[in-house]
Amino acid sequence: MLSKVRIALDAMGGDVGAPVVIPGAAILLARHPDIEFLLVGDRAKIEPELDKHPALKAASRIIHTDVAVSMEDKPSQALRRGRKKASMWLAIEAVKKGEADVVVSAGNTGALVAMARFCLRMLPGIDRPALAAIWPTLRGESVVLDLGATIGGDARHLVALAVMGAAMASVHFNLTRPKVGLLNIGVEEMKGHEEIREAAEMLRTMNLPQLDYVGFVEGDGIGKGLADVIVTEGFSGNIALKAAEGTSRQMLEVLRSAMASSWLSRIGYLFARGAFQTLREKLDPRKSNGSVLLGLNGVVVKSHGGTDAEGFAYAVDVGYEMARYDLLTKINQMLNRDGGALTSVPTAQEAVS
Amino acid sequence: MLSKVRIALDAMGGDVGAPVVIPGAAILLARHPDIEFLLVGDRAKIEPELDKHPALKAASRIIHTDVAVSMEDKPSQALRRGRKKASMWLAIEAVKKGEADVVVSAGNTGALVAMARFCLRMLPGIDRPALAAIWPTLRGESVVLDLGATIGGDARHLVALAVMGAAMASVHFNLTRPKVGLLNIGVEEMKGHEEIREAAEMLRTMNLPQLDYVGFVEGDGIGKGLADVIVTEGFSGNIALKAAEGTSRQMLEVLRSAMASSWLSRIGYLFARGAFQTLREKLDPRKSNGSVLLGLNGVVVKSHGGTDAEGFAYAVDVGYEMARYDLLTKINQMLNRDGGALTSVPTAQEAVS
Repeated sequence: MLSKVRIALDAMGGDVGAPVVIPGAAILLARHPDIEFLLVGDRAKIEPELDKHPALKAASRIIHTDVAVSMEDKPSQALRRGRKKASMWLAIEAVKKGEADVVVSAGNTGALVAMARFCLRMLPGIDRPALAAIWPTLRGESVVLDLGATIGGDARHLVALAVMGAAMASVHFNLTRPKVGLLNIGVEEMKGHEEIREAAEMLRTMNLPQLDYVGFVEGDGIGKGLADVIVTEGFSGNIALKAAEGTSRQMLEVLRSAMASSWLSRIGYLFARGAFQTLREKLDPRKSNGSVLLGLNGVVVKSHGGTDAEGFAYAVDVGYEMARYDLLTKINQMLNRDGGALTSVPTAQEAVS
Repeated sequence: MLSKVRIALDAMGGDVGAPVVIPGAAILLARHPDIEFLLVGDRAKIEPELDKHPALKAASRIIHTDVAVSMEDKPSQALRRGRKKASMWLAIEAVKKGEADVVVSAGNTGALVAMARFCLRMLPGIDRPALAAIWPTLRGESVVLDLGATIGGDARHLVALAVMGAAMASVHFNLTRPKVGLLNIGVEEMKGHEEIREAAEMLRTMNLPQLDYVGFVEGDGIGKGLADVIVTEGFSGNIALKAAEGTSRQMLEVLRSAMASSWLSRIGYLFARGAFQTLREKLDPRKSNGSVLLGLNGVVVKSHGGTDAEGFAYAVDVGYEMARYDLLTKINQMLNRDGGALTSVPTAQEAVS
């Protein structure tokens, strides 16, 4: 029998905190009974929520702290005030101490990246962490990274992202050699920033056994599912993600008002409500909640700060899967395969920012 | 009575050329009879199309050339082979010579940017051209630039984009002081690349009378309509645009298959087909065709290469409006207002790329 997956939750993280985190954990526990939770935060806020979910209560342990990182704290402030004290820090530290397999927080992204980096340290050969998410496409799903853990980066950084993204895709999609593309503004060789062209050259030359480099992919190629992994530095990754989220919200709004616009369309809506239900489920933004912070000595999952319990459960589910299928070991194996994917990369350059 | 708007068309541009360009021009002429067309390209290909549209024929003059820039040409190749010869060049040159008020091409973007820059030259105070488009939002429409005319750029470049974008917004939306936002990965002051933070500081300090700087806008803020003008350098602008286009196409596809999934949903579709028609019209990607190449001594409009006649007509319409309302004079006025918006900008830095 498999051992339990131990998940540490920053119970104070997000716009709401415990009233979203605790019921979210309860939803996921019903889906996967093989979880033990470490709930980190203010006992006075956690316990009343926990009393409503007896099964979760039985599968949880509380680590009390009344210090919380706020959504407005700068990373440096969060570190100064919260190191060794805040719920976010202590939840990350539980992974470091081996008390949890994965940590999930809906808190402030900048603070989470800084604390995770400081507490867990980077994997050998990786300079900076990256946020990776599962992006729904016309052909299924793809891993897209970096969505904004850091910004800018040289060719070597992009190659590291490719290797980490491929590891995540092989865990998540059960692929042996995921297709990897570099996000660019055109597919022709001469397009884009120098570091992207250089990374393309490196990936082609290295011809790694763990990933299949397929070339440049444009912004609309992500949704077409042209590659299993789409690699870009954190600034453009964040812009792409949010532009897509914004468009999707905008279209649902237009659809809603079109369907409410006349008697006929409202009758039509009644007939087709099954189809609309499917549509809503397919497009539910809560389902793509949960990005993984890659490159660290530990698995850290970031949830949207503004999500509800159902959405938070999806983020915890990402963490569950990554822990259950041992993402970290897999990344380490990929990095070290054939004498180390990244140590064989030519000279490192300075990062752009 | 107003004088006619004279529009030069690169009749060979785009994936199809004359069979899209000529009927596209005919569609627009029916909408705005106050246009004269200069059709630049191979007479043998233009005339058979023109014979199908007698009204257009009467309002057009052909400038013959059998040289055309291909969609695959690099900018340098296009310039070498096509300078003073290709339909794209000659159409741009008609603007330079004062024979046309605006030029529209569906040809290769890189070649168009290079040729326009070389032939028309930049406006005083502007170093590089920028592609600006009208982006549909929940609150109406916004101008977004640069969508990929060039990539990277320092703070001064971003300020120049802000001024040009504001000029376009005031022409297009009839606003006296459009709200301008800088695209960034967060709204907090310390977020993003240094050049963006520096541009924010400049725009705040300059407090220009022609635009109202409203701060950073995230990727999903574009669709929310948080500003009339969204400014970013060409790499992230192109990524944002294409990620949004890809998402929109993906959602229409999901909607289509959901509505076809059962008998009930098909019946519902019949009842609601008026609403779906409205929806399709609202979301018609052809309607947002036509980006304006700003910063030059002349108005140049770029159409998607793969559009149809209806879509091409939308791009020509953008050019018509920009010429009718005298975009160029307006940009020049904005640039020179109060002693020159851009000459008062602090020291220029080197561009990032």
